[in-house]
Amino acid sequence: MSDWLAALDRRAELRAKAGLTRTLRPRAADDDVVDLAGNDYLGLSAHPAVTAAATAALAGYGLGSTGSRLVRGSTTVHHDLEEDLAGWLGAERALVFSSGYLANVGAIRGLVQPRTLLVSDAHNHASLIDGCRISGAETMVTPHADVDAVRAALAAAPNRPAVVVTESVFSVDGDLAPLAELHAVTRAHGALLLVDDAHGLGVIGPGGAGGVTAAGLAGELDVIVTATLSKALGGAGGVVAGPAEFVRHLVETGRTFVFDTAPPPAVAAGVRAAVGLAWAGDQLRAELGDRVALAVRRLRAAGLTGSVPEGAVVSVTAPGPEAATAWAADCRDRGVAVGCFRPPSTPDSRSRLRLTVNVGVPRADFEWALEVIVECAP
Amino acid sequence: MSDWLAALDRRAELRAKAGLTRTLRPRAADDDVVDLAGNDYLGLSAHPAVTAAATAALAGYGLGSTGSRLVRGSTTVHHDLEEDLAGWLGAERALVFSSGYLANVGAIRGLVQPRTLLVSDAHNHASLIDGCRISGAETMVTPHADVDAVRAALAAAPNRPAVVVTESVFSVDGDLAPLAELHAVTRAHGALLLVDDAHGLGVIGPGGAGGVTAAGLAGELDVIVTATLSKALGGAGGVVAGPAEFVRHLVETGRTFVFDTAPPPAVAAGVRAAVGLAWAGDQLRAELGDRVALAVRRLRAAGLTGSVPEGAVVSVTAPGPEAATAWAADCRDRGVAVGCFRPPSTPDSRSRLRLTVNVGVPRADFEWALEVIVECAP
Ligand SMILES: Cc1ncc(COP(=O)(O)O)c(C=O)c1O
Ligand SMILES: Cc1ncc(COP(=O)(O)O)c(C=O)c1O
Repeated sequence: MSDWLAALDRRAELRAKAGLTRTLRPRAADDDVVDLAGNDYLGLSAHPAVTAAATAALAGYGLGSTGSRLVRGSTTVHHDLEEDLAGWLGAERALVFSSGYLANVGAIRGLVQPRTLLVSDAHNHASLIDGCRISGAETMVTPHADVDAVRAALAAAPNRPAVVVTESVFSVDGDLAPLAELHAVTRAHGALLLVDDAHGLGVIGPGGAGGVTAAGLAGELDVIVTATLSKALGGAGGVVAGPAEFVRHLVETGRTFVFDTAPPPAVAAGVRAAVGLAWAGDQLRAELGDRVALAVRRLRAAGLTGSVPEGAVVSVTAPGPEAATAWAADCRDRGVAVGCFRPPSTPDSRSRLRLTVNVGVPRADFEWALEVIVECAP
Repeated sequence: MSDWLAALDRRAELRAKAGLTRTLRPRAADDDVVDLAGNDYLGLSAHPAVTAAATAALAGYGLGSTGSRLVRGSTTVHHDLEEDLAGWLGAERALVFSSGYLANVGAIRGLVQPRTLLVSDAHNHASLIDGCRISGAETMVTPHADVDAVRAALAAAPNRPAVVVTESVFSVDGDLAPLAELHAVTRAHGALLLVDDAHGLGVIGPGGAGGVTAAGLAGELDVIVTATLSKALGGAGGVVAGPAEFVRHLVETGRTFVFDTAPPPAVAAGVRAAVGLAWAGDQLRAELGDRVALAVRRLRAAGLTGSVPEGAVVSVTAPGPEAATAWAADCRDRGVAVGCFRPPSTPDSRSRLRLTVNVGVPRADFEWALEVIVECAP
């Protein structure tokens, strides 16, 4: 009867031998670790306006939304947040989901018709991959950021509906997809372009409106934007933005929308405050860009290599999973939290540290943390 | 270029003709509708201890968790909540997800090995169905609550790993799965039993610990429990509870755990307060049972039929989708919110009202709402 548990144990041992064990390390509210690992790029998660809005909504609505958006889960807060997100993203309509994960799954499934071909970038996030899988559509994975491969995939499928699926700023390496070129290719083929702007939203583009806006594609009727509300916006939940007909389609038929409890009104309220701050946050973004440039200079000067960051994510190559783990552990011991990405969380099989710039961290702490990272390098 | 939108429009028109249009109706914090539609069965979403705990965590942690549980997303609040949930459910370990949807997808995928057969009840929730799909495992759908069919499905797959997937209290009709019998069958075959206790948790069983505990199956090493934290617990998020080895497996390899932002600490804190209240909530459950019995008597006396409710969900048959919509609309016009479930949200193709008992509603309002429902009946 517990054979299955013994089998799981054996798999855990294999992972341990390969240096791939993962452990939960709960943090306390008052821990004084310098955060170069979280995705709170603009430092909005603890912004007084964000927590105040959430606190007020808690008092007004209570904690849970108590049901699906189609039953009791829609509040005026969700509605207002959606209006603001649509305005910010330049889309006809925006729809909030309980997570970016479920937003991606819902959006991809909602775009698939019989015979649709999905063309998915090799570095795409797990939620995009799962969305492709669950849609049941044929999926072709193209090499990372390879416009020619996408063009060829579409050309090989004439007269078929197709959707090209990509991130904007990629989550692991922080590099930028060639969105304008991809759109030229999808437009020429009559295909749709779905862009997960999770790591672009709030960080790049005019008004921080993300990679799609930066590429001049906001409001295009053949472009769908998804994003999580948990990174630069410092909250939780996901969003799909696009043409009104598509959003209506998701409201009425999207399984991960219809059959899921709406996010708490307090979370929606806090995120709405964050949207206002991010939209007006050019100063925050200037500071962010400054720190990213500083990090790149400092790491290069120390002989460390990595990707060219376009947002707030700086990826630094590690020699292997054990070395990455030890590096991150040494940083942590000295009071600096860094991300440590190893297979299977990396799109290739390479391990790296993943540093994020969070302007909520005092500048001096950030600069000190860079020195710690360099000193701990293998 | 906008052919696809025209096609979506045509589908929306077809749904409208079939009476299957769905619309979002945002509610204000101060709306005075009597709620017989939400899933806040114990009225905990607005309990002062729940909102106070959430408010305190907002002050301590800010809004978002800022990352995956494996990066920056684990706080002591998440940890404590998991300990409490494990204790309540009598499981070795519990793991919190950002939604019940992603908990189900993660749990099912985590249970699947090569050659696994999934046996899934015909009335199972969309998230369980999606979990089966995305796992890639062969899935056999058995007629609703049919133990013999499950036995036959397992017998036809000797020497294959198998997982039987069911809800405890079913979400649409509120009826109870034959959990003890199902477990006898899975145990005899050496299969696992996964129970989604979303509508049982807090509502049935000793200490409100749910359908699995009620069936005497708590802590069995071949039983996995999932649940949402958004119904009787009045919050948001999901949980998987089971043997420590399995939870470890999910922590290290579960895609919907690893690649998803942790729920906000404030939500976890509020839910934790709700667990304490629900665990000690025998009085709330007595009042709940009383109201369910009252509802059944009143509806039967009016000649209305429906399922035999085992939890807080009372389903009432409607003649068809238009009649159900009109019935619910009439109730709403008179100030009573009821659920209106039509295809494709119903496991069969029948439409019904779905009434829920929420002990946070004043008793007199509840009784008045029952009269309104009867008076509006088609
Ligand atoms: C690119 C990308 N897409 C989607 C998600 C999922 O969003 P969420 O955490 O809100 O589920 C993430 C991160 O978690 C991400 O990095
Ligand atoms: C039986 C059942 N399972 C799972 C879920 C999904 O939980 P969540 O809303 O937290 O995603 C629900 C309801 O939404 C449900 O009714």
